[in-house]
Amino acid sequence: MRIRNAFYAQSGGVTAVINASACGVIETARANKDKIGKVYAGRNGIVGALAEDLIDTGKDTAKSIASLRYAPSGAFGSCRFKLKGLEENRLQYERLVEVFKAHNIGYFFYNGGGDSADTCLKISQLANKMGYPVQAIHIPKTVDNDLPVTDCCPGFGSVAKYVAVSVREASFDVASMAQTSTRVFVMEVMGRHAGWIAAAGGLASDKNCELPIVILFPEIPFSKEKFLAKVDAMVQQYGYCSVVVSEGVRGEDGKFLSDQGLRDAFGHTQLGGVAPVIANMIKDALGYKFHWAVADYLQRAARHIASRTDVEQAYALGKAAVQLALKGENAVMPAIVRLADKPYQWSIEVAPLQKVANVEKTMPRNFITKDGFGISEKCRGYMLPLIMGEDYPPYKDGLPQYVRLKNVAVPKKLADFEI
Amino acid sequence: MRIRNAFYAQSGGVTAVINASACGVIETARANKDKIGKVYAGRNGIVGALAEDLIDTGKDTAKSIASLRYAPSGAFGSCRFKLKGLEENRLQYERLVEVFKAHNIGYFFYNGGGDSADTCLKISQLANKMGYPVQAIHIPKTVDNDLPVTDCCPGFGSVAKYVAVSVREASFDVASMAQTSTRVFVMEVMGRHAGWIAAAGGLASDKNCELPIVILFPEIPFSKEKFLAKVDAMVQQYGYCSVVVSEGVRGEDGKFLSDQGLRDAFGHTQLGGVAPVIANMIKDALGYKFHWAVADYLQRAARHIASRTDVEQAYALGKAAVQLALKGENAVMPAIVRLADKPYQWSIEVAPLQKVANVEKTMPRNFITKDGFGISEKCRGYMLPLIMGEDYPPYKDGLPQYVRLKNVAVPKKLADFEI
Repeated sequence: MRIRNAFYAQSGGVTAVINASACGVIETARANKDKIGKVYAGRNGIVGALAEDLIDTGKDTAKSIASLRYAPSGAFGSCRFKLKGLEENRLQYERLVEVFKAHNIGYFFYNGGGDSADTCLKISQLANKMGYPVQAIHIPKTVDNDLPVTDCCPGFGSVAKYVAVSVREASFDVASMAQTSTRVFVMEVMGRHAGWIAAAGGLASDKNCELPIVILFPEIPFSKEKFLAKVDAMVQQYGYCSVVVSEGVRGEDGKFLSDQGLRDAFGHTQLGGVAPVIANMIKDALGYKFHWAVADYLQRAARHIASRTDVEQAYALGKAAVQLALKGENAVMPAIVRLADKPYQWSIEVAPLQKVANVEKTMPRNFITKDGFGISEKCRGYMLPLIMGEDYPPYKDGLPQYVRLKNVAVPKKLADFEI
Repeated sequence: MRIRNAFYAQSGGVTAVINASACGVIETARANKDKIGKVYAGRNGIVGALAEDLIDTGKDTAKSIASLRYAPSGAFGSCRFKLKGLEENRLQYERLVEVFKAHNIGYFFYNGGGDSADTCLKISQLANKMGYPVQAIHIPKTVDNDLPVTDCCPGFGSVAKYVAVSVREASFDVASMAQTSTRVFVMEVMGRHAGWIAAAGGLASDKNCELPIVILFPEIPFSKEKFLAKVDAMVQQYGYCSVVVSEGVRGEDGKFLSDQGLRDAFGHTQLGGVAPVIANMIKDALGYKFHWAVADYLQRAARHIASRTDVEQAYALGKAAVQLALKGENAVMPAIVRLADKPYQWSIEVAPLQKVANVEKTMPRNFITKDGFGISEKCRGYMLPLIMGEDYPPYKDGLPQYVRLKNVAVPKKLADFEI
């Protein structure tokens, strides 16, 4: 087997554990130096490959690479850059293959969501056609947990843990204040199309720690009347309640609830979140004092409260990707298979990219309670294993120590390319 | 020494560690059963005392009480209820003394901020005048860190740690995304009048991990022009930047920046945060894509990332309060004294309540950099010890286990009282 180099890139929104996958890729490649030469990373994702801006991960020590396991964000930079269709922009795909050829890259590891699975598949196909075969392996990553085939996506377990922990903590807080002050706490979470992250808020309440939580899923059209009745019932029963709202909630008219045409005093449009909309709606209709939070990046970057299960799966999938490549696989993705809920057991299977690319997995209706405002026991059984275990990063002077790699550039060999 | 009962109440916004103070009070009282009988807690703070709604903490086991050390929020309920001036509403004060008398309460421990220090002082004075002397001891608590005399306030160290960790994590995130997407991340934090919490965002960047952070303090009148120039300079230099904005930032006209007269499509006033205002301002003027977060309750409830120093001080001050009472002190507050910055050393001194009540400590100007957008080395030296150490709560099934006490009511002895 001829030694060829590998290329690894991070794509789309980053997570608390995408670097754990990078760690799995690089450590496994380093353990197979007889087959894989260098591991190059794309600076700022696939854009780095197009620009021939490659990072030589070999310049970083084993210790630094091992520390990737604990660092949130994308260590090599990520990008929001969707390659156009093959027919539309064949030049970009050809450029990628040229760059791979120039740097003796025979393995392409792409760490991202549904879009990047599609890109990965196209690159595999085109490279083949162009007579420079590249084994393209996709490594799943997305906080949204919306990829098909795989039982869950690395990144999701940690954001779910963050949301469950935060909703529990904030619910304790509002419970303390409710008699004379705040009655309702509203927390906005990510999930434009799928309610997996919002659902995690439901885990905050369990039989040992019952809490009144109302969830707004993007899968359920928002009914103001039913929602207000639910909140009011909760406050009447418990004295307070917490609302977890997905950023992607839409009204019965199909419009995002966050899109309220907010204007400032000068008539300028303001981009606000959905949490203040919901909070103000409750105040106006029910008169309850509220507090609201928008977690935004905090939720997906919260490596300090990452799920150990998630970290382990992220690493294992990175490792598996390299092992699959070494076995000669192409246009595939290692995926998590659930063997048992309790105790949780999982393994890794191989999924063809055709089944993954551009398919979005939303919450099954039976994961949501009949009234549309909570999670079912089925959902809890699915989700609980994913937030299991803590995996604290090292601290110094009170702060988590997140590695920054050297990110040394590989000398360019090709002419510039306009992206 | 005759055995008398103690009364303990939590006041105002709760924190991640106020229950650690409660733990210190109750455990120390239990260790002195020859002097202190029962420890009663006010259900929902001082309102519980007015209503004679007392909780018998003796009904909870030593294990439950010990677990208070790890539970955020107010275990007995808190309240936002400021007793009026003595002359205005003498009846309320008299009622308190009556309740204390009816339940043989000789020790009053009040765990709160500046307002409650004032209440504590008044109760001590009035009880004396009414011929039923009560030793009133105030235990400092406030995330805002704005109490005088004490070097810092329990609750602050943990919120500071949460903010520093979160800003570091989110800054790593935006750095990953900056080339093709988000350039600026804006995080809104608490602190209506004092910028201590916002300042903690500055700790996210240090000499081992430099990050571009711009802080907006309530102590510095907001200049749009200077702020935009600063953000632009940061983005030009680093490619991205994080902005930490205190909810209490005001323009040069003295108005809260968050008060933008936001209206929805129907003309209804919307209560929004200051983070979206800042984010939209940056987008409009500089064109940078942004993300924004509002931490709200999450920051003060985040027991999962509490500072060990903070937890230890909260417990120690609760313990000291009881010890002071046993020494015969009255109308005082145990306060933290800093003996050394590095290595950090502290002890507890006694402060008369006259010096504490109704005084607000804002950030000294020399804690803020000359340009008004960062923290000075002096501030860092002050603040760093306060976020030192982790003190993780116990977890089960992936979630922190926060104790809930039985909160058994003490039988009433008096007629009802209208609050």
